[in-house]
Amino acid sequence: MLHRTDGAARLATYHTPHGAIQMPAFAPVGTQANVKTLEPRDLHELGCQIILANTYHLYLRPGHRLIQKLGGLHRFMAWDGPILTDSGGYQVFSLADQRQLDDDGVTFRSHIDGSLHRFTPEMVMEIEQALGPDIAMVLDECPDPLDRAYNRQALDRTHRWAERCKASHTRPDQALFGIVQGGIFPDLRQESAAFLTQLDFHGYAIGGLAVGETKEQMYATLDETCPALPQEKPRYLMGVGAPEDIVEAVARGVDLFDCVLPTRIARNGSLLTPEGRINLRNARFAEDPRPVQEDCGCYTCRTFSRAYLRHLYKAGEISALRLGTIHNVYFLMELMRQIRAAIAAGTFADFRAAFLERYQISNQQVRHEQRQRRIQAMRG
Amino acid sequence: MLHRTDGAARLATYHTPHGAIQMPAFAPVGTQANVKTLEPRDLHELGCQIILANTYHLYLRPGHRLIQKLGGLHRFMAWDGPILTDSGGYQVFSLADQRQLDDDGVTFRSHIDGSLHRFTPEMVMEIEQALGPDIAMVLDECPDPLDRAYNRQALDRTHRWAERCKASHTRPDQALFGIVQGGIFPDLRQESAAFLTQLDFHGYAIGGLAVGETKEQMYATLDETCPALPQEKPRYLMGVGAPEDIVEAVARGVDLFDCVLPTRIARNGSLLTPEGRINLRNARFAEDPRPVQEDCGCYTCRTFSRAYLRHLYKAGEISALRLGTIHNVYFLMELMRQIRAAIAAGTFADFRAAFLERYQISNQQVRHEQRQRRIQAMRG
Repeated sequence: MLHRTDGAARLATYHTPHGAIQMPAFAPVGTQANVKTLEPRDLHELGCQIILANTYHLYLRPGHRLIQKLGGLHRFMAWDGPILTDSGGYQVFSLADQRQLDDDGVTFRSHIDGSLHRFTPEMVMEIEQALGPDIAMVLDECPDPLDRAYNRQALDRTHRWAERCKASHTRPDQALFGIVQGGIFPDLRQESAAFLTQLDFHGYAIGGLAVGETKEQMYATLDETCPALPQEKPRYLMGVGAPEDIVEAVARGVDLFDCVLPTRIARNGSLLTPEGRINLRNARFAEDPRPVQEDCGCYTCRTFSRAYLRHLYKAGEISALRLGTIHNVYFLMELMRQIRAAIAAGTFADFRAAFLERYQISNQQVRHEQRQRRIQAMRG
Repeated sequence: MLHRTDGAARLATYHTPHGAIQMPAFAPVGTQANVKTLEPRDLHELGCQIILANTYHLYLRPGHRLIQKLGGLHRFMAWDGPILTDSGGYQVFSLADQRQLDDDGVTFRSHIDGSLHRFTPEMVMEIEQALGPDIAMVLDECPDPLDRAYNRQALDRTHRWAERCKASHTRPDQALFGIVQGGIFPDLRQESAAFLTQLDFHGYAIGGLAVGETKEQMYATLDETCPALPQEKPRYLMGVGAPEDIVEAVARGVDLFDCVLPTRIARNGSLLTPEGRINLRNARFAEDPRPVQEDCGCYTCRTFSRAYLRHLYKAGEISALRLGTIHNVYFLMELMRQIRAAIAAGTFADFRAAFLERYQISNQQVRHEQRQRRIQAMRG
């Protein structure tokens, strides 16, 4: 339900069998049915409304049949809030070995044991319905966003797969979202949005971004894509979690995000603050008695100094990874609360300007290299 | 304060500046100012009354001066309950490189960066007083318990070091415990107990056990040593944490224990139950919907199935290490509660028999090999 807009930014509530999600919302990633280092009680304490789990990983280990037998994903991982599962497609293209793609599906070898597997739209629907998340995603292909020829070809396949997913999805208690593809090409994005809209999904993801294009290209693509999607349905930007990207995407009409960023960078000692990221391994924090973020309400900031946290990171203590994760996830949850409050107050433009003025974006070169590595991995 | 005895078992309260400890008690080990994977709020929730931190590790990293500057160990790690620090002697002999022992002290190289350091009784007192635990331990030498000649020689040095520690310890808000040595030799243990008793420490540890002798030899040594210690002072058996050993040592008059066992074995997937240890990596738990221990009140058992925990261990999730640790520490805290209740009720003999009847002791051969490796490490 769309409550109000402020420019293109949207304040909405999305209802699921496991509770309502106030949007814009961010979903931490629990790849293997666990948000790394966190427990369900932590997720509740941090204000998480929805988490994402990865179909590819859970299908391979421990297996969707086992999870179904044990009562489904919610019961298995003891998380009683909303869950979204991706389709596994992205992991097949970025993680699995020796994948062979055809129009009917994709055959690949497990990155764990090399065993041979095949995903088709119907198989992915079977897996996601067995896992039982509140929101399932269709199987799609995620090409290099800068390669027009590849995107042109992949888009037709992705659309046929979307139709087949819709046709084979039968669980009435589970929403199914389509995924708009088309790289950075406005005409392809608009074609994809139009095609998927007529299939009438419960929501629409924007896929294939944050995987190699520049920030400017990503924002421009959102400018073209969001207006082409139905107003009354949620819009989900997959794999995006950098604070500045979230703010910019909300400004363009996105409602939902997921990303490993807050949890992954925390395990490297990198923590989010309103001024940007700081790395606690840095020697300048060795005697710093202040919390990571002065005004932060998370357990880590309420309890420990930067000096102590740095000691834990340097000493290789597991607790460092968890305490850093608690802070980073809280930071993003707080960012989403602030975003929603600003939209509700009609002051989102001011919030966006103030946030981006204060927040120092981390080194673009490092980020570009990381993207290039991801693309290499995807290209095999 | 000794409340009552039941056979040789003792129910007592020991007061510290950071609160009272109901004894018999078990202290989880926070080697680097952190009980691995746990937070202070967890320790409180689990019922931990006191924790141990390692002087050797904290001296090397981040340094006792830094911890003192940041307000002492309690404030640094945000644990407001009692803390005990060991003297670092055991780690110098088991971890450090190129140690050279003389009557005045021991010179060694850091296992972290090879830098050269020297511990004397006076230096160790300086470090422990800077760290500021509620209970400090004297510097001692911890020889192979089966080597009579070595124990005879080391005992005199340990006693001179105890005198020097006592003489240089000045913090009135910090208790100082002596450490009885003497291997498995009753006459040496009694000599050591008598010597240290006349120095009038706040409490007495029994050191040099659980490092190579059999269980029977350890129990026999306790039979000889405990009666030689003053009734009104606490008795602390260092480095012992196997449930069966705790029960047997309480039966012989021990009040306090510490050990890495519950936290370390949890990280290997080994969890404590009233029937003995189970390893969650075992395939037989793959589809097991039951908690680790049916009647357990810990968060892990109240929330997750063995099947889910096994999945986390197999998938390499950090959360597995933490959830296992939560259970194992809770198990030991609950064991201590049961022990205290039995002593209070005058039924400790029955409790001991019932516990040992039910609890299957883990493979003795494996344990023996582990001990041998520890001895090798100590001998360099």
